[in-house]
Amino acid sequence: MKTGKLNREHPGIIVHGGAGRKLDMRAHRRGVRRAALAGQELLLSGGSALDAVVMAVAVMEDDATFNCGTGSALTLSGTAEMDAAVMTGDLRCGAVGALEGVKNPILVARGIMESTDHVLLVGRGARRFARRMGFRPYDPIVPRRRKQWSEMMDRLTAGRNPPYLPNLTTTAGAGGLGTVGAVARDERGRLAAATSTGAMMLRLPGRVGDTPIIGAGTYADAHGAVSATGHGEAIIRIVWAARTAHLMRRMSAPGAVRRAVQLATESGCRGGLIAIDRRGRVGYGFNTRSMSWAHAGRGAVEVF
Amino acid sequence: MKTGKLNREHPGIIVHGGAGRKLDMRAHRRGVRRAALAGQELLLSGGSALDAVVMAVAVMEDDATFNCGTGSALTLSGTAEMDAAVMTGDLRCGAVGALEGVKNPILVARGIMESTDHVLLVGRGARRFARRMGFRPYDPIVPRRRKQWSEMMDRLTAGRNPPYLPNLTTTAGAGGLGTVGAVARDERGRLAAATSTGAMMLRLPGRVGDTPIIGAGTYADAHGAVSATGHGEAIIRIVWAARTAHLMRRMSAPGAVRRAVQLATESGCRGGLIAIDRRGRVGYGFNTRSMSWAHAGRGAVEVF
Repeated sequence: MKTGKLNREHPGIIVHGGAGRKLDMRAHRRGVRRAALAGQELLLSGGSALDAVVMAVAVMEDDATFNCGTGSALTLSGTAEMDAAVMTGDLRCGAVGALEGVKNPILVARGIMESTDHVLLVGRGARRFARRMGFRPYDPIVPRRRKQWSEMMDRLTAGRNPPYLPNLTTTAGAGGLGTVGAVARDERGRLAAATSTGAMMLRLPGRVGDTPIIGAGTYADAHGAVSATGHGEAIIRIVWAARTAHLMRRMSAPGAVRRAVQLATESGCRGGLIAIDRRGRVGYGFNTRSMSWAHAGRGAVEVF
Repeated sequence: MKTGKLNREHPGIIVHGGAGRKLDMRAHRRGVRRAALAGQELLLSGGSALDAVVMAVAVMEDDATFNCGTGSALTLSGTAEMDAAVMTGDLRCGAVGALEGVKNPILVARGIMESTDHVLLVGRGARRFARRMGFRPYDPIVPRRRKQWSEMMDRLTAGRNPPYLPNLTTTAGAGGLGTVGAVARDERGRLAAATSTGAMMLRLPGRVGDTPIIGAGTYADAHGAVSATGHGEAIIRIVWAARTAHLMRRMSAPGAVRRAVQLATESGCRGGLIAIDRRGRVGYGFNTRSMSWAHAGRGAVEVF
């Protein structure tokens, strides 16, 4: 109940642009602000929380500042395999894992939620579904990422490591920065969460992280909506988003986030969270060096 | 605390062969008994809980009675895409989704846990990893499944449905029967859970269900280990396995399972669960017509 005066009974959205070390603070500030504004505009014109979080995430997917959609990190094979998920407070959800060749994975995730009775589609099957739904082929790889990949591969080769490493301890934390997410509550009190990522550089092809795992990187129920970012494998192990949502049964979003970040720290999990509860109170927290975020209720956008 | 007298401080294993309507009770009884015995033998000779659950699940993967490994159900495209996961009480875990062309997906999941810093590999990436780890090409499709697939496809075509249906409401519950799992506690008090499935007939290619989703179909922590079976999408939404493990913080495995099955029923989720707590007490429960299971402590195997 610590921030009960904030946004009560009001629509609102909070977005994040990833946790870790910031490479370009200015670009992150601009990007998360733009995303929050896009979501706010929908909420204030009567749009749903679902519409708002999907729009906010899609805006960040199209911004190469962030590690998702255009500008995604690359696997050891040099492929851009993207993960995304969306969920609403009534437990409807859709997600994609290791999806290549589309512009906006979050829209494909929404398509799965609305047009199938499945939750998660991965790999070639996910891409095939996207094409059937009319999503055009698109190459999300930007020159900066290709260059980064080449340099990292050169270093691997110089160290005489084989090009395919089963034990990839080097990847933990490498490029995890920049996963994006959004959570919102609309005027009718509906909640939604969305998350999208390009994941870690040089991970094994086919690796799926926490983002599209319902309960790990993304969760929403009647009590709250949550989007997480950070070290995917560690987030999966502690079922971070669902646990945070569960805490919102008995505390506000800021309180739940505070407790959830403590839990993560105790488990050696590094990352950040955003959350919104059923009364529209928002919370954010992280145990990394920084996390970019922006919040928009009825008034001006607050930026980290 | 309702079955506190059972297996206290003793090693034990409980396995399931899926929930739903049983096609062949006798084959299920024989299969789950054999799997529990294989796990028990390891536990009694000093093997770890991890060794025991992986062995028990591998035995069922090799038994075409069950919908996993050899005998897996087929997707709309006629492919056998298998899901599996393993997790230990210290939160280590590995999983595969939509994996084709191997004999024992649970062994590949264990390989991911032990030889990479990832948790989940899917699709072609998972298969490539399996090959690198030395798992030979193997076709898990049995004639009975191929025949079933042809008949179901004929019915779809007769009904003039297109061969690719985005809105596959027909698949819910079709062939979900036969997912297998095992949970165990060894003499040193270590806990482990493992689950493996061939999933639903005629699902979209690339669809991943609850089985390899840590927290949904499979979970283990210091308090208990859980394996679930049933309608995958519904299980994902309620984060069933992690919630059951969480309940074991304050109640025994039988109590936690009873409460978790109530929760599922309230959410419209159909399925079954097995669980073991840190004191070796076991629980099983389901809200489907039946579930096949077998339990082995130090003595004779109990079968459903």
